[in-house]
Amino acid sequence: MKPSIPKGTRDFGPQDVQKRNYLFSIIREVFIRFGYQQIETPTLENLSTLTGKYGEEGDKLLFKVLTNVSGEENAPAKRGLRYDLTVPFARFVVMHQNELHFPFKRFQIQPVWRADRPQKGRYQEFYQCDADIVGSPSLMYEAELAQIFDLVFAKLGIPVHIEVNNRKVLSGIAEVFGISDHFTAMTMAIDKWDKIGPDGVVREMTQRGISAEIAEKLIEVLGNNDLEYYRDLLKNSETGSLGIAELDTFWKYLSGYNTTNKIIFSPFLARGLGYYTGCIFEVKATTVEMGSIGGGGRYANLTEIFGLPNMPGVGISFGAERIFDVMETLNLFPSHFSERIKVLFIAFDEPSHLYAFNALSKVRENGICSDIYPDPTKLKKQIKYASDNQIPFVAIAGETEVESNQFMFKNLETGEQKSYTLEELISFLKN
Amino acid sequence: MKPSIPKGTRDFGPQDVQKRNYLFSIIREVFIRFGYQQIETPTLENLSTLTGKYGEEGDKLLFKVLTNVSGEENAPAKRGLRYDLTVPFARFVVMHQNELHFPFKRFQIQPVWRADRPQKGRYQEFYQCDADIVGSPSLMYEAELAQIFDLVFAKLGIPVHIEVNNRKVLSGIAEVFGISDHFTAMTMAIDKWDKIGPDGVVREMTQRGISAEIAEKLIEVLGNNDLEYYRDLLKNSETGSLGIAELDTFWKYLSGYNTTNKIIFSPFLARGLGYYTGCIFEVKATTVEMGSIGGGGRYANLTEIFGLPNMPGVGISFGAERIFDVMETLNLFPSHFSERIKVLFIAFDEPSHLYAFNALSKVRENGICSDIYPDPTKLKKQIKYASDNQIPFVAIAGETEVESNQFMFKNLETGEQKSYTLEELISFLKN
Repeated sequence: MKPSIPKGTRDFGPQDVQKRNYLFSIIREVFIRFGYQQIETPTLENLSTLTGKYGEEGDKLLFKVLTNVSGEENAPAKRGLRYDLTVPFARFVVMHQNELHFPFKRFQIQPVWRADRPQKGRYQEFYQCDADIVGSPSLMYEAELAQIFDLVFAKLGIPVHIEVNNRKVLSGIAEVFGISDHFTAMTMAIDKWDKIGPDGVVREMTQRGISAEIAEKLIEVLGNNDLEYYRDLLKNSETGSLGIAELDTFWKYLSGYNTTNKIIFSPFLARGLGYYTGCIFEVKATTVEMGSIGGGGRYANLTEIFGLPNMPGVGISFGAERIFDVMETLNLFPSHFSERIKVLFIAFDEPSHLYAFNALSKVRENGICSDIYPDPTKLKKQIKYASDNQIPFVAIAGETEVESNQFMFKNLETGEQKSYTLEELISFLKN
Repeated sequence: MKPSIPKGTRDFGPQDVQKRNYLFSIIREVFIRFGYQQIETPTLENLSTLTGKYGEEGDKLLFKVLTNVSGEENAPAKRGLRYDLTVPFARFVVMHQNELHFPFKRFQIQPVWRADRPQKGRYQEFYQCDADIVGSPSLMYEAELAQIFDLVFAKLGIPVHIEVNNRKVLSGIAEVFGISDHFTAMTMAIDKWDKIGPDGVVREMTQRGISAEIAEKLIEVLGNNDLEYYRDLLKNSETGSLGIAELDTFWKYLSGYNTTNKIIFSPFLARGLGYYTGCIFEVKATTVEMGSIGGGGRYANLTEIFGLPNMPGVGISFGAERIFDVMETLNLFPSHFSERIKVLFIAFDEPSHLYAFNALSKVRENGICSDIYPDPTKLKKQIKYASDNQIPFVAIAGETEVESNQFMFKNLETGEQKSYTLEELISFLKN
């Protein structure tokens, strides 16, 4: 039997795990620095929690879970795998509302599962990294989330544009053009701008019942990204003006802050999903074609679906898998990690092997990542094990070293070598 | 609709996640220090990988996964949830054998799922923390794994005994007593010593076909925990003597090493599971009744089930959920974590709120976990938010502070307060 893993899933070997941990730890550190608290929800949710929350298409992509335990053999599935982090978070807030202090700032870094057709860069099991605030309408949080995007991508070394728009501005535009009834058609279409271009967007809109004349005029208008232009355009639309005011407040909070990356007003940004109601965000790498690598926005009510009204919120999500690919493409991962093994002990015979193992224990007591070849076998084989595992130094012990209470310490990269006592060796590796 | 989560699963709120992260990070740090490399395997495995690997009982406890995607609606389940970390690791080694360098030292900290009847302390979704070495028969690794147990529990502050035995010693004893045919009956019975006592063990053995006379004699013999006694007892058993020699080598490697906790030869330790073939371990807290909180042992062949022979290994596992409970009982978690929010900014009006938000951005640029109340609302309400979130300091800004370019900095625990410039505030919080 030749073993395999399901299509759309992945094994992560040591190098991939180190890279992924590096990526997650930077996102995590920034979330924590900004006062977000980590929660975790179970992989298994009741199907009733998940069903109907992601549209008809989403329902089809839910993984359902069965057991063989007695009484359940032929029963329909009652559990499903987490499909995103938002619905479980909403459920969490409702279930724990009496233990939480609002506004509640949480982050969550966990895998989710979707029965999508596997293809390059799309997996059935992948990580999401979300930060949300619930229980406050303050626009200050929008500013804070933009700062988080900026800082994370600065730390990762990925040059990005952070695009900002406001659903109320889009709504005002629809009002001005008299197509409020076709608002979803409009946002769904302009959302595809990057993929299908202006002609494509016009075609999409006309197919969805917007006249070609209006569609073309709309494209022309949206090409303008000067906020002052929209302030004037929307001055008679209450909703539109409110959207402009929200963007003003957002920028007011950022006025004293120097970002590494540009934050750009982008009228074409629509975030097709119906549930956003205020500011919306999307992040794009400027030096690689990759689509959106982060996004988010304000929603009027997160928890209404579970019976708890008046819980406005705003949140962002990092597209971890795409960010990983961007970092590989731009060669942004460190060439080696602080957690790598620094020295491999190598011995010539049984007594020196025991001598080396005792020394190794002392090295490890000093918090230094270190190892030993398990047998006093051929030197060449042991050296090969060190280089195969990217270990930069070896500490060799034979009869002479045991007698003089030293080690032959060798830099495998330069070939340089030197006799060291154990104390000298530890002090060298600590610095 | 009142939301709930499936029985046997758990939400982890911020405090629990901090504690769990603390526990996992200590285990992780020690694994890495000892040269183990982290891997991750998918949650979803092919059912064919899992089925038949955990006995009949295990097969019943597997969670099976279905989808609604076209072509799969009525098909039987082909995927299952990870049931432990050992079988996926064996599969990983076989699939990636050409990329790995042996001996391969890996660790893995991931959740597993079992459709067990939920009860106190037993969950359907829980974490395992495993470290294994495959591709070497060296007894040095047994010594290293005992050191890892010792160091992790020392760091956590849990006093433990690390019990050691060898399956070959048990096999030799069965030989000497002429009950080699009843070896499994014997190990299964003595494994329950802690739970059912000597009379219970004798009863178990007689029920499984061992004569009462032999069973009672066996209990008497096993009461002796002097290795020299067994060396003599087993001198004519080849297997038994080999087991004694293995324990000698194990102790030889530890001879130069001072452990925090006692490592004890325990003839009653049997690890009922059939697959161990050499040294076996079990860890018990000495000041709390909790059963085993760690265990492991040597196996002759990890990967044979997937067609790759000659892959001996040895590994250990930390019982994370039980260790968590022990730490709660003994009050061993830090009272607060380094990642907590250190200061909350508080403002009296709109201008001072903006002033405070700009200052906060600078504080965060200095890597300090910090936050601000989102609106310039009543002082009392903002102070309450700080204490509800266990934030030790507040930095208050009103008209006076904006004018003097300062903050009223207050220690919420002592009530002490002082005017600070932003620089003074940052420098105070950094130390």
